[in-house]
Amino acid sequence: MLPFGLRVQEKIERLIDKHMRSFGASKVSLSSLSSQELWEKSGRLKDDSDVFRFNDRKNSRFLLAPTHEEEMTALVGGIVETYKNLPLRVYQISRKYRDEPRPRQGLLRGREFIMKDLYTFDISPGEAMETYKIVRTAYNRLFDELKIPYLVAKADSGNMGGNLSHEYVLPTPTGEDTIISCSNCGYVYNEELADGKVHTAEPQPPSSHHIPNFATGGSPTGAPPTISNGLWMGTSKDKNTLLRGWYPKYYMAGGNEPVERHPSSHAIKSIADAAGIDLDLSVENPLEQWASQMKANNGSGSTRQRPTVVDLYDSQVRVFQRPPLSDLAEYAKCAEHDIKYTMFDRFPKTSDSLSLTKVHDGDKCAKCAGGTLTSHAAVELGHTFHLGTRYTEMLNAVVTVPEKIVNPDAISHRSTQIPMQMGCHGIGVSRMITAVADVLSDLRGLNWPRVIAPYEVVVLSMPGMQAEGETIYDALASSQTAPDIILDDRDRRPDWKLHDADLIGYPVIVVVGRSWRDQQAIEVQCRRLDVNEEVPLSRLSEFVQSLLEKL
Amino acid sequence: MLPFGLRVQEKIERLIDKHMRSFGASKVSLSSLSSQELWEKSGRLKDDSDVFRFNDRKNSRFLLAPTHEEEMTALVGGIVETYKNLPLRVYQISRKYRDEPRPRQGLLRGREFIMKDLYTFDISPGEAMETYKIVRTAYNRLFDELKIPYLVAKADSGNMGGNLSHEYVLPTPTGEDTIISCSNCGYVYNEELADGKVHTAEPQPPSSHHIPNFATGGSPTGAPPTISNGLWMGTSKDKNTLLRGWYPKYYMAGGNEPVERHPSSHAIKSIADAAGIDLDLSVENPLEQWASQMKANNGSGSTRQRPTVVDLYDSQVRVFQRPPLSDLAEYAKCAEHDIKYTMFDRFPKTSDSLSLTKVHDGDKCAKCAGGTLTSHAAVELGHTFHLGTRYTEMLNAVVTVPEKIVNPDAISHRSTQIPMQMGCHGIGVSRMITAVADVLSDLRGLNWPRVIAPYEVVVLSMPGMQAEGETIYDALASSQTAPDIILDDRDRRPDWKLHDADLIGYPVIVVVGRSWRDQQAIEVQCRRLDVNEEVPLSRLSEFVQSLLEKL
Repeated sequence: MLPFGLRVQEKIERLIDKHMRSFGASKVSLSSLSSQELWEKSGRLKDDSDVFRFNDRKNSRFLLAPTHEEEMTALVGGIVETYKNLPLRVYQISRKYRDEPRPRQGLLRGREFIMKDLYTFDISPGEAMETYKIVRTAYNRLFDELKIPYLVAKADSGNMGGNLSHEYVLPTPTGEDTIISCSNCGYVYNEELADGKVHTAEPQPPSSHHIPNFATGGSPTGAPPTISNGLWMGTSKDKNTLLRGWYPKYYMAGGNEPVERHPSSHAIKSIADAAGIDLDLSVENPLEQWASQMKANNGSGSTRQRPTVVDLYDSQVRVFQRPPLSDLAEYAKCAEHDIKYTMFDRFPKTSDSLSLTKVHDGDKCAKCAGGTLTSHAAVELGHTFHLGTRYTEMLNAVVTVPEKIVNPDAISHRSTQIPMQMGCHGIGVSRMITAVADVLSDLRGLNWPRVIAPYEVVVLSMPGMQAEGETIYDALASSQTAPDIILDDRDRRPDWKLHDADLIGYPVIVVVGRSWRDQQAIEVQCRRLDVNEEVPLSRLSEFVQSLLEKL
Repeated sequence: MLPFGLRVQEKIERLIDKHMRSFGASKVSLSSLSSQELWEKSGRLKDDSDVFRFNDRKNSRFLLAPTHEEEMTALVGGIVETYKNLPLRVYQISRKYRDEPRPRQGLLRGREFIMKDLYTFDISPGEAMETYKIVRTAYNRLFDELKIPYLVAKADSGNMGGNLSHEYVLPTPTGEDTIISCSNCGYVYNEELADGKVHTAEPQPPSSHHIPNFATGGSPTGAPPTISNGLWMGTSKDKNTLLRGWYPKYYMAGGNEPVERHPSSHAIKSIADAAGIDLDLSVENPLEQWASQMKANNGSGSTRQRPTVVDLYDSQVRVFQRPPLSDLAEYAKCAEHDIKYTMFDRFPKTSDSLSLTKVHDGDKCAKCAGGTLTSHAAVELGHTFHLGTRYTEMLNAVVTVPEKIVNPDAISHRSTQIPMQMGCHGIGVSRMITAVADVLSDLRGLNWPRVIAPYEVVVLSMPGMQAEGETIYDALASSQTAPDIILDDRDRRPDWKLHDADLIGYPVIVVVGRSWRDQQAIEVQCRRLDVNEEVPLSRLSEFVQSLLEKL
């Protein structure tokens, strides 16, 4: 970070401090060096984890922490003894590290990044939910103050644990997340939440076949006419199972053009998980991998594992009357009956039909009857997680409570120990800089929101007007509502200085030049509000302030 | 860092920001992840360097930077093109890492620590000296503002390169540095500067033998009477050379008790370096090491390297008339004439007599005639270095200058490129916290200087007086000279709260208790100033302010 970038970063940090303080969070700072042993206890350190590891000169095993659930749980578990110390909310803003497989887009995804991480500790799930709401309110206020067009989406908890989480995202074409929003009911969610089940706001028509078999082949009803089917393939991690997903590839939507749908790996993964298949989404040529695994099994004379094929049928696709295995058998040079075959047209252990495809703009909302869905590429800036006891149980972070609090019917006056209810809540500081710069910039340069701009106002003194520039600067800097202001008195040509100010993206540019000499007026520019006005000195401070309030 | 410690740390950081800004230094922030390749270019990365190293998933070779000379030189070298951009001063405050052989004393010497590092770039050695003075002035103001009893000592440049450096140290019995100060002329220096030469403010008596040999054995003159000699031993890194230092161990000083002197490894190292001996100070049993190396050489029939003995004679020790080798020969089971022998009673290539001992309290100052020396254990808090072109030459950080600037006699108007003159200037933020806490604390708790205290003032509201506590807090917090203030309204007993406030070390404690109820007076305590007064509300703000100004 060079000086101006660092000012932006420090302003974001101060903004975060302000909103964390608003609900009594305490600021701490943990070491970036942490212990591999601790992370093994929580079960999060695996051979393929994106974590930098190394040994010190005495062969102690260190890691560079990418986040601090383990350390914070151990710390708080060691300090807090009784439920009377709860709720407890602690946060930090620090450098985090990740051995990122694909570092890219500058600060958006790097090996070293700055993150605010807040950890909350409560006595019961109910109080933890209250805390969760309080944090979300603070997040909303923080993002509102930034004045950026953010969305809050229901999100997947991923490998954090827990089962409730929300993402704060900024829509931008270069974003890596896909967020779905409804035009009517305001439901917003990350497409990662696709669980493979058909959800509709209307009652689902009863299925013609509750027990899947190959005799019935029910005909899809109430759906747009499918023109042709698509076939998605993947394998299990042991390469023994080939998973095939049959989905509606082209169908007629409202218009005359056929619309192409895409398979959702999240949906397929969710169904596979429920069916007990450990799907490996990183395999690029699943059919070949499966076939060569099959040949290897045959060659070794091993009969322990029969090659397996599992078919998933989207509710919009007609189920084949008999297992479509002949092509596969030919490819893998075996007989059809050598293959163990299973199919699902219902979500395992439920009667829900399957949906294997991604949301397409214009799809109906599953939450309300009237809305249609839109998808947005977006960058994740913040994430809130309710973690429950995922870490506190494993690391034994418990508090002593009277039994009555856990069980209101208890008559004893004894105490008991329970693990704390935990939440964690991040904001990506360095990625926020890139994302906001990216979304608000135009062809002439950056455009910083006032609250995180390196300076709110620049005074450009034109050649030969250094003294006048200083006068105007002093007038603004000493006014009652003094903005964060800088004087550019470098000895450069006027257009170079204006160009430079545009590039840097000051919210307001004050030019002390010809119009001051001619008519004692100061030129005030604001690209985002499309303002370019000449203002007398007496009105300058007030006018600048009125612009800043809109930015 | 827990919340209060972090407040101390952040206050130190703001104090540093203020004083760096005072001479126009720009704040930046470099990555803690750096490249091993860059450090190999500068020659500072060796197998035994105290640097954490690791590879990422693509086998790129990273390190955790312990300091940023290389990175900053590469950065500035890539940005600055012309001498018109100089002087340039950039600093950062960030986490640094060191694979410390002996981590200890909490934050004083840890594997992860926070440091302010300032780098200065100038066009000429003269301008670099000006910058050096400016930085020292800012450092003096900063340490003055801390109101701690610091010393500024001339110091060794160590492996930083360059030949001018000063240390800002805080005397404390637990300190690891030894600082020598004169009672008269104000000369202060680190004992590491001991170069093995006799320095005196008075003219040195002419030596009786300018060419060392064994016939003369000059008698030491003008020195306190030595009672008995001591023998220091060490070996070269290849174990082939045994170095012996003969020094005055006991001598009669002013009093009646004999005084014991200690050999200075810095002095002996300096002489050894000048004599071309690569001394290994980490060897614990040098005589044994040397003897077994000698036996090994004999065993292998190797005659390339004759075992060597080098004797150094302190100017206070009478030189032996013939080489004292018989004991050694016996120990190593060889003949005396097998040993190659050299001795020095003058500093190699000079006529300076040798001084092998550490300064003892009461020794005469070498700079002035009248002073006596005192040694202090101390902790290093800051260090200024003039580096010259140590890094800029190796990393090719050059600027274009008109030839005339380099050589005033040049008549051409051509330009040339020269490496920038560099300085680096550190302040240890985390170790400052430990050192200041350590030096100012007493049996009742910590005692923070006002400028870095977690809060300047605490208001303790005693049981049943929460509302009154808030009133007093509001009165102080809304006064014109509002201190950084906190209200302790926890529901605890009075003595517990007073004890806790003493432990934390608030500069000023305001107690709203019995005397408020009885006579509308507020008790103000300040342990460092030994103040415990009852003050009416009308005078409270002014009284608190007057105390803070002294702290």
